[in-house]
Amino acid sequence: MKAVYPGSFDPITYGHLDIIKRSLKYTDKLTIGVLNNPSKTSLFSAQERVNLIKELVKDLENVEVKHFDGLLVDFTRSEDSDVIIRGFRTVSDYEYELQMAHINYKLDDNIETIFMVAKNKYSYLSSSIVKDICKFGGDIQGFVPANVEKALKEKLFGGHNGR
Amino acid sequence: MKAVYPGSFDPITYGHLDIIKRSLKYTDKLTIGVLNNPSKTSLFSAQERVNLIKELVKDLENVEVKHFDGLLVDFTRSEDSDVIIRGFRTVSDYEYELQMAHINYKLDDNIETIFMVAKNKYSYLSSSIVKDICKFGGDIQGFVPANVEKALKEKLFGGHNGR
Amino acid sequence: MKAVYPGSFDPITYGHLDIIKRSLKYTDKLTIGVLNNPSKTSLFSAQERVNLIKELVKDLENVEVKHFDGLLVDFTRSEDSDVIIRGFRTVSDYEYELQMAHINYKLDDNIETIFMVAKNKYSYLSSSIVKDICKFGGDIQGFVPANVEKALKEKLFGGHNGR
Amino acid sequence: MKAVYPGSFDPITYGHLDIIKRSLKYTDKLTIGVLNNPSKTSLFSAQERVNLIKELVKDLENVEVKHFDGLLVDFTRSEDSDVIIRGFRTVSDYEYELQMAHINYKLDDNIETIFMVAKNKYSYLSSSIVKDICKFGGDIQGFVPANVEKALKEKLFGGHNGR
Amino acid sequence: MKAVYPGSFDPITYGHLDIIKRSLKYTDKLTIGVLNNPSKTSLFSAQERVNLIKELVKDLENVEVKHFDGLLVDFTRSEDSDVIIRGFRTVSDYEYELQMAHINYKLDDNIETIFMVAKNKYSYLSSSIVKDICKFGGDIQGFVPANVEKALKEKLFGGHNGR
Amino acid sequence: MKAVYPGSFDPITYGHLDIIKRSLKYTDKLTIGVLNNPSKTSLFSAQERVNLIKELVKDLENVEVKHFDGLLVDFTRSEDSDVIIRGFRTVSDYEYELQMAHINYKLDDNIETIFMVAKNKYSYLSSSIVKDICKFGGDIQGFVPANVEKALKEKLFGGHNGR
Repeated sequence: MKAVYPGSFDPITYGHLDIIKRSLKYTDKLTIGVLNNPSKTSLFSAQERVNLIKELVKDLENVEVKHFDGLLVDFTRSEDSDVIIRGFRTVSDYEYELQMAHINYKLDDNIETIFMVAKNKYSYLSSSIVKDICKFGGDIQGFVPANVEKALKEKLFGGHNGR
Repeated sequence: MKAVYPGSFDPITYGHLDIIKRSLKYTDKLTIGVLNNPSKTSLFSAQERVNLIKELVKDLENVEVKHFDGLLVDFTRSEDSDVIIRGFRTVSDYEYELQMAHINYKLDDNIETIFMVAKNKYSYLSSSIVKDICKFGGDIQGFVPANVEKALKEKLFGGHNGR
Repeated sequence: MKAVYPGSFDPITYGHLDIIKRSLKYTDKLTIGVLNNPSKTSLFSAQERVNLIKELVKDLENVEVKHFDGLLVDFTRSEDSDVIIRGFRTVSDYEYELQMAHINYKLDDNIETIFMVAKNKYSYLSSSIVKDICKFGGDIQGFVPANVEKALKEKLFGGHNGR
Repeated sequence: MKAVYPGSFDPITYGHLDIIKRSLKYTDKLTIGVLNNPSKTSLFSAQERVNLIKELVKDLENVEVKHFDGLLVDFTRSEDSDVIIRGFRTVSDYEYELQMAHINYKLDDNIETIFMVAKNKYSYLSSSIVKDICKFGGDIQGFVPANVEKALKEKLFGGHNGR
Repeated sequence: MKAVYPGSFDPITYGHLDIIKRSLKYTDKLTIGVLNNPSKTSLFSAQERVNLIKELVKDLENVEVKHFDGLLVDFTRSEDSDVIIRGFRTVSDYEYELQMAHINYKLDDNIETIFMVAKNKYSYLSSSIVKDICKFGGDIQGFVPANVEKALKEKLFGGHNGR
Repeated sequence: MKAVYPGSFDPITYGHLDIIKRSLKYTDKLTIGVLNNPSKTSLFSAQERVNLIKELVKDLENVEVKHFDGLLVDFTRSEDSDVIIRGFRTVSDYEYELQMAHINYKLDDNIETIFMVAKNKYSYLSSSIVKDICKFGGDIQGFVPANVEKALKEKLFGGHNGR
């Protein structure tokens, strides 16, 4: 099975990495698709987000990292894939994800969306919470890998490493 | 990927069949596991439920139907599989399924649970609603295949086909 | 608009009464349908439940109280009505109600289900909680009308009025 | 019963239209109220949104389309109506709708809010998802009527009809 | 603050123990109240459940363990306490707990209910899941303390320690 | 127990005041912490929000009102407190609150978060709904104390007291 794991990854957290590693157990090829959404402001550019992920998956086989814009079903087809993998944590996630899965199924019913559950030690994690904690000087070591921590601090404090 | 799709299937509905057919797009082998839960009364015996499903999947390749008791992770391993597929419809489903996925992950972290969403035309369907409607003489043609409808009426009305 | 307000009403609470009174503002005729479900044990018989409600609505115009068994859509049609009114309080209610509304729409798409929200001072009330509190000797005056309180105590304590 | 069906309708979808048609079965007069909310940016002006809806309901009897600002209860009273109709799809919708129903009841307890459930083939639809899909070049024929599709493309691509 | 932590504890799990220990940080005295509900069958008797908990908290100060029947607010008052502590995990828990908190507030508005969140490594745990897993021969070491594991196996397998 | 009750309080409502008064029954000292979040625009400045609350709690003992920025756990520690009190109303609240409680526990596991439930007559209230109603000329007397109503009207209509 060739699958696409799409997201904003602004930035990637240990929660996302966990889904990636567990997906690799049952996929033949996984494309991590970084959404470049022009109508949403992101802290990191799409290319920066791709680069951070590439550093983290460089030793994993059968993984590619790309950014995309446009419809997810179009990107999935262009990757010669027919499965979208999504992770979720909360009931609110769940409803949004269901809505998108139905929409994507309506746009292309050859593409299936499958879901994985964040391991519960990551169930409270999100990119935006990590950014907030970092902004206020909190310790984010348990939430993101070292390269992401470094990049976040540079982005937020100009390399002065926080308070 | 070899996967197990477990459930009570008392009886199987079009909602379950839809998940089965969509799973086959991305699995190499699928075992439908009919749970024989001694502490829950079921309308059909485990063997009857297996037989109804077998009639429905007999033309599909790479599908097996078996009943099991005991822990789902044990059954999954015994099928030489490492993926459990579950479908869900509602928020209540979702929470129960999350709980079971975490428990199963704790019992055996080599086994992944993945979720699919019922197509929305089946999102209101459940085996127990079908049984209730049939009991009260409602038309269940849109909810279950013909062999299941026949078996249900025989079971509920002794072959007299309802009111 | 002729509407049916169905339920178990085992027994009726101030929450149900509130929905009834507010429904009457916009319906031309309202039938309160007491479900006689042979597969669920109830504290009061269907006829007792009908009688308790009749005492409470005897001064209201355009209201009838009846018990029914079988499918709700059949009962609704037999009342020459095409609207089912349901009240809800919680998210769990909501999901169950949505499921039933979809099923009923599938069984007869001439019948619409509309929902009203319990006033928030009644949002925690349910027939089963009232029965539990009464059983343990709690004060249920704020939860059910006097005739229901009396009937409950007679049913539970044989007329000895609780502890 | 005279009812008001309020919303942003930016733009109207098949989901909204379904609620309108089903409401007409049991209302004597229905006013579709397009909310002109100065603190939220909308793609279409209130007048444009009214015009799109008017084209769609021009053959339906007993329907009016108007825009309004200010409080919904004030608009409802000014329409000589005492029922507000709302449709919902998800649990998140539901909670927001409950909150608004309680607030409106507190502001004017002569006005009742009643709810209808989107038919499940429309349960994933929302105006903002339709706008997003259109923006990215996806096919929106199954989601909105032809006049809305045309207006959306003109608004988004200056009449050049997408990519 | 003197508080009561009520529950069925049939049997106590690591999730309950975690709430007990964290509650002790801010309470002056904690009474663990084991509900003896005659209308619900339990695996362990109320006295057995009390004994299992007593073994686990014997080294903690300011903790008492008692069983009670009747209304929780009555038990709380009889313990000279005015705070009820409840833990929760899921949205379904949450709604039930809210309902009970409102009811208890209505029955005695001097008694406050406060809630704590299960640590997320215990968020999937419940007494009934532990019993099911044990029944099917699964490993429950990570879910309950040793004395509870032993008691469960004796109760379920007559001291033969499972399969 | 020394506790912190944090929030935006933009502005404080009767719902918040209810939580404050009920918290005081079981806390030895309560600090109301007004979050000064530079990345979110607020109607009232942090100092204005503190002043409005101070007027309301001036007769209550053991209450302090302060504004803070940065991490809530840091503020809590700086107040020599180890309990955070949060109120909630809806399922969406609940999920967000759970997430924050887990994050805060991870940042400092000596600090416990406890939750209280808004009394149900306030369960629909929020600062933003109050601002919206006031903006549109609705009556907000039942939602906020007199000093807040006055301040809101001055802020929104320049002292001209609304429409």
